[in-house]
Amino acid sequence: MRCDQKFYLHAWHHIEKRNTMRSNLNLLFNPEGVAVIGASNNPAKVGGMTLLSIVSGGFKGEIYPINQREEEIFGFRAYKNVKDVPRKIDLAVICVPASSVKDVLRECVEKGVKFGVIISSGFGEAGGEGRALEREAVKIANDGGMRIVGPNCMGMANSDIKLYALMNMLIPKEGKVSIVSQSGTLGSLTMALASDQGVGFNKFASSGNEADLHAEDFIEYFAQDPKTEVILVFIEGLRDGRKFLKVANEATGNKPLVILKGGITEEGAKAASSHTGSMAGSAPIYEAAFKQTGVIRAFDGEDLIDLAKGFALLPLPKGRRVGMVSAWGGIAVLASDSCARHGLKFPELSKDAMEKLDNLLPPFWSRRNPIDITSAGIYGSWEIFIETTELLLRDDGIDAVICMIPIFTPIFTSAFSRTTQYKDYTENVLQFTEEMEREFMKDFIRLRGYGKPLIVLSFFEGRESESVKTLEENGIPVYRTPEKAAHVLSMLAKYKEYLTDLDVKSR
Amino acid sequence: MRCDQKFYLHAWHHIEKRNTMRSNLNLLFNPEGVAVIGASNNPAKVGGMTLLSIVSGGFKGEIYPINQREEEIFGFRAYKNVKDVPRKIDLAVICVPASSVKDVLRECVEKGVKFGVIISSGFGEAGGEGRALEREAVKIANDGGMRIVGPNCMGMANSDIKLYALMNMLIPKEGKVSIVSQSGTLGSLTMALASDQGVGFNKFASSGNEADLHAEDFIEYFAQDPKTEVILVFIEGLRDGRKFLKVANEATGNKPLVILKGGITEEGAKAASSHTGSMAGSAPIYEAAFKQTGVIRAFDGEDLIDLAKGFALLPLPKGRRVGMVSAWGGIAVLASDSCARHGLKFPELSKDAMEKLDNLLPPFWSRRNPIDITSAGIYGSWEIFIETTELLLRDDGIDAVICMIPIFTPIFTSAFSRTTQYKDYTENVLQFTEEMEREFMKDFIRLRGYGKPLIVLSFFEGRESESVKTLEENGIPVYRTPEKAAHVLSMLAKYKEYLTDLDVKSR
Repeated sequence: MRCDQKFYLHAWHHIEKRNTMRSNLNLLFNPEGVAVIGASNNPAKVGGMTLLSIVSGGFKGEIYPINQREEEIFGFRAYKNVKDVPRKIDLAVICVPASSVKDVLRECVEKGVKFGVIISSGFGEAGGEGRALEREAVKIANDGGMRIVGPNCMGMANSDIKLYALMNMLIPKEGKVSIVSQSGTLGSLTMALASDQGVGFNKFASSGNEADLHAEDFIEYFAQDPKTEVILVFIEGLRDGRKFLKVANEATGNKPLVILKGGITEEGAKAASSHTGSMAGSAPIYEAAFKQTGVIRAFDGEDLIDLAKGFALLPLPKGRRVGMVSAWGGIAVLASDSCARHGLKFPELSKDAMEKLDNLLPPFWSRRNPIDITSAGIYGSWEIFIETTELLLRDDGIDAVICMIPIFTPIFTSAFSRTTQYKDYTENVLQFTEEMEREFMKDFIRLRGYGKPLIVLSFFEGRESESVKTLEENGIPVYRTPEKAAHVLSMLAKYKEYLTDLDVKSR
Repeated sequence: MRCDQKFYLHAWHHIEKRNTMRSNLNLLFNPEGVAVIGASNNPAKVGGMTLLSIVSGGFKGEIYPINQREEEIFGFRAYKNVKDVPRKIDLAVICVPASSVKDVLRECVEKGVKFGVIISSGFGEAGGEGRALEREAVKIANDGGMRIVGPNCMGMANSDIKLYALMNMLIPKEGKVSIVSQSGTLGSLTMALASDQGVGFNKFASSGNEADLHAEDFIEYFAQDPKTEVILVFIEGLRDGRKFLKVANEATGNKPLVILKGGITEEGAKAASSHTGSMAGSAPIYEAAFKQTGVIRAFDGEDLIDLAKGFALLPLPKGRRVGMVSAWGGIAVLASDSCARHGLKFPELSKDAMEKLDNLLPPFWSRRNPIDITSAGIYGSWEIFIETTELLLRDDGIDAVICMIPIFTPIFTSAFSRTTQYKDYTENVLQFTEEMEREFMKDFIRLRGYGKPLIVLSFFEGRESESVKTLEENGIPVYRTPEKAAHVLSMLAKYKEYLTDLDVKSR
């Protein structure tokens, strides 16, 4: 560690600590009864959409809509007050206007509610009076033994019990990634977009203004949670630097912790301050803290999804030696640039591998790694793609494989819509391509069995493509550009190196 | 210019020049008759797909398939030899095996063909004998007054006459961007993908091994071509540095010249050498050359498309002062980071603008630029999005506007497929959202009329979204991340600064 980093970390230990209780969040994520306070029959209202999210998501536990005027909401009996509910309530999701929140919390405390998720805004982020209101509300809750998520947040989720208390109904695919995000939108969109790319989610917390529970508390909980295998975090600023160092260290020893930090420039920090009221803090402090604790750092929202996909779907590589298969020389050139930039190597092929490839491929193949099998891969048999990829996966000198598969169906569909003649022929080509691709993907996905990271490159990532869907649903991530593939692979390798280093130190 | 750059450029002037003829490519792009030599009835063969591409693309000129065995191909009379064709042929597209190419070229010369596009591979890129064959073939052609595109290329196109002589049938949308690419795939995919994002193309040349005509020749032609308003280039290495400096200068004075250079690392240069046999050359030489000539440099294949979209759809901004509208604070924070990284400014809002916004927006709006209108933009009336954006577009202190529109339809479609209960409600929400979005987009696109760059941020760029399509088809580009939007805007501003600088110098 460099000297200036030590200095920053020392400074960090003196950042104000507002809460040192070790938080048990079990009842937040596994409540026996859930009240939605401010529930509505109108899905265009926050309290309507949040309740609809819970019920349409399939929550099997008890749901209690609270509304002063309605008798029934979405078929559930509504209560005028949380205290009128005859049974136990562990969690209250609060959607009433900020001015009513203190009263609601007093009632929750009387009822014995353990956790409140305050979706309502108009608190700390609004400045002045909002800040005072926020402090008072948290005091009422904490004094009554109740902990608060938010305010000014988008909710929480736990797929174990199909509880999706979200103000936006963006119900994700189930899986093993858990998220805490200071921006509810960013967290929700990450889950929604990644769900279409083969990534499933376990738990989610939108921590909002973090008036009580902080991102650090959720990281701590996810670190110990056996259902969580990858942790994603979006933060603008941390409240408790010392706790972060501790919980990040705990997490990264067992599972990858991927963090996107907003507000790393002066401009960004100013915007963060008006958003969640957080102090974004000095970029070098965060850099030092992330480096020391083995945190994987995401560059932006898209990178967060790319990394989630890589860590959720792929095993860690043993090292940085990459093999590549492509039918297109230009892509191999760009991939070489990208891998070099990210510290990955394209090692030379062994004599044995060269001989096998000479037998397999047309005479004008590249005769080096990255392997350009030339248009033989498109006009010839697609089997040579699979055989070449398999050859690399079996090679002891190769730690990970990138394969650029020519997925043409979505682009043919689009391009052929612009043809004006010979539609019957173009439709035949499209149908032939679709069938060929479908057969190919079926064969290709078994290559996952080699236990090495296998990445597919295709410009159609994120588009409507049956082939891309098949690959990702079967654990083979697809990236749009060589740069993305190389970046993700290098982050997997870096985390592997961090773990190896920990292992050596602990001996 | 720095001293070391001068040195590099001096060195460049001594790079071997292989061809100094000023090339008139009119007959290549506007041929009277086109022969496809090695045409086939089987679209799975190169000669089949290339002919099918020409006929299905709607070419109205004369088409002559040449095949030794067939009488008729795709309904066209086939000839055994190009010399048997009774009428004029300006262009021959050659798909026969490398070993037959010399004979075919001799026949073309006898017939008086002016241009040959050699799609066949097995030449310079295959090394040794292939290199000798390539030299001999070009000599035969040039001695007979014929110029060659390729070999080892993917064809050419000109939308003015609907001529799409492509070996992959990827017929692009018509428009004003022209491309030359040393990688046919990269060029073709760029056109195909960008076509779905509102970008249209005028001319295309896949320059392949560049045994005769070089990328420089096409840049020169596009620079003078009134139908070409934006030039895109993918190169691995240039053959004629002096000519490049001259034609790049000519081009950039009139229209943007966007270049992606593959092989900028040592690894990439090695891969390039086995791909097109080109010398990738030293990265600093290229950097100096691009900088001196006002070339806009793309980072990778995706960036090339992003920049094409920006330059094709947007006017140039007067300066670097950006206004931003978002309903999501986290996105505003990330956008602030991105704009700061790319040298863009979020200027303070004028007193007048602040007053208007205070009247328009809910009390807890960010009260600064970037403008976070908060969830009022989602749950309230969408009109305030348009009014806020319009206010910024009218402001003399703002040169460009980025607007993050909450496009929800594609993500709701996907998320609701995971709901298990209350399907009728979720379907209503989806239908309501679709209708609201459709109305909103109709209103929003008129904001293009202010003549300032207007960019929309949406994570759904590249996905199947009617809203994104409407925006891009109407000249408002959509980008997936704040980073992409900021990068493209900064490149537009940089080119504007280059033009202003030229203007000052020429006075």
